[in-house]
Amino acid sequence: MFFKCENFQRVGAFKFRGALNTVSLLSDEEKSRGVVTHSSGNHAQALSLAASMLGVKATIVMPKNSPTVKVNATRGYGSEIVFCENNPESRVETCTKLIDEYGYTLVHPYNDERIIAGAGTAALELLTDYGPLDVVMAPVGGGGLLSGTSVATKGISSLTKVIGGEPENADDAFRSFRDGVIYPSIRPNTIADGLRTNLGDITFSVIRANVDRIVTVSEEEILSAMKILWERMKLVVEPSGAVSLAAAIKIKNELKGLRVGIIISGGNVDLEKFFAEFEVAQ
Amino acid sequence: MFFKCENFQRVGAFKFRGALNTVSLLSDEEKSRGVVTHSSGNHAQALSLAASMLGVKATIVMPKNSPTVKVNATRGYGSEIVFCENNPESRVETCTKLIDEYGYTLVHPYNDERIIAGAGTAALELLTDYGPLDVVMAPVGGGGLLSGTSVATKGISSLTKVIGGEPENADDAFRSFRDGVIYPSIRPNTIADGLRTNLGDITFSVIRANVDRIVTVSEEEILSAMKILWERMKLVVEPSGAVSLAAAIKIKNELKGLRVGIIISGGNVDLEKFFAEFEVAQ
Repeated sequence: MFFKCENFQRVGAFKFRGALNTVSLLSDEEKSRGVVTHSSGNHAQALSLAASMLGVKATIVMPKNSPTVKVNATRGYGSEIVFCENNPESRVETCTKLIDEYGYTLVHPYNDERIIAGAGTAALELLTDYGPLDVVMAPVGGGGLLSGTSVATKGISSLTKVIGGEPENADDAFRSFRDGVIYPSIRPNTIADGLRTNLGDITFSVIRANVDRIVTVSEEEILSAMKILWERMKLVVEPSGAVSLAAAIKIKNELKGLRVGIIISGGNVDLEKFFAEFEVAQ
Repeated sequence: MFFKCENFQRVGAFKFRGALNTVSLLSDEEKSRGVVTHSSGNHAQALSLAASMLGVKATIVMPKNSPTVKVNATRGYGSEIVFCENNPESRVETCTKLIDEYGYTLVHPYNDERIIAGAGTAALELLTDYGPLDVVMAPVGGGGLLSGTSVATKGISSLTKVIGGEPENADDAFRSFRDGVIYPSIRPNTIADGLRTNLGDITFSVIRANVDRIVTVSEEEILSAMKILWERMKLVVEPSGAVSLAAAIKIKNELKGLRVGIIISGGNVDLEKFFAEFEVAQ
């Protein structure tokens, strides 16, 4: 197995690739007006850093109940935070208002060809460094990483299988892929918080065309893969980032003897409690 | 800064280097009789794996109150465990008895030229890959890693400074180095459990001859370095393994603009509680 460790990526997740690619491709006029997105997760920090590196103003819409640590981290990369109510409608509404008022360009977290192409560079590097591979595996939430992975992989070696890993408790992509329609993600109840969203129309069509299979895994299987990564491989990986390995372990009999690439998507875990207990214990 | 990540080493710590070197250098007769050591930590697992790889029988003497997880891990590498009472005298006595009875060769955890030479290969690789370096830093407990690091470093580039990092709460090496006599480590009270031992006569003389300085760090500084390694660098590092970075941060003004090599000695942390809480939280 060959691991692409996107937990080592800037801002601790693959999201930086898509954000940097997208902001880079904006016109000078778009750049001068600035970018906006709604996210409280890795995409917010990724866009903030990418924009600041390219001298572009970024505004991030976040629910007002977002954890202070995330708000500060995002602000730390130099972007402006605008708070909204704690529901999806308010997030979209607040974003739309900002776009109307200031002419910002919306940078969607996944449903965008530039985001997909950027995310695909992880698989591109993995195949360049360790190819040929028989299988490449990536987690799937909104589908940006999996669709990018599939385009990059099939573009380099069309015979390499691309397999997505998804939590059973948020299996909308599995069902959408099987049935050919986009299902919404209803009440996803998984520790893999980065994989709770449903596919977009663009990621869905790329995945339908290029991905070979989606394997779902239980919460126990995700935790068990995460444990292997932390205890045996000494890597801090977030639950979403361990889902590709969990899926590989689930189908290990089929992978026997094959060269398998595993994309570890990120490593942003809240360790405050862990370190607080460490201090108490000493 | 250039990090040598010995948390990624076999058995999760640099100890494997010295153990493998030592067992490799035994005569065929010594090999056929087997090896013994007393340890409940990384050295026990390192010797077990090294011996099993070379087809040599290993016997590990452990205090009978050792955590089951460590006993099982060591046994898992194929060695035999012999329990002793929970005091240093019983450990030595039990070892001596086994040596007398079976002719085992004692493999000391640090006070041995072969262990020191093996440990030094970490710095050798660091300098080969990223040299020239102005400073190389390693933690110091019994002194095997620091003495090996100093010999390798000075052998390659005599002008490179070698600096040890040690917990303030177990500063016997700092005082021994300063005063030129080996002080025992009395009631060391540090989370850096791998650095509680005092120097041996061999490691002491090598360190006196080759090390430039020992920097001590508080428990808070160790935890803070550990937090940077986990949160920002996504590396699972044990407290002892973070002490070299803690020392570097402590003297950061002096290191400004220099090329500094940091040896992260290991990553064996008990994560059971962390994962148990993770399961409860989901």
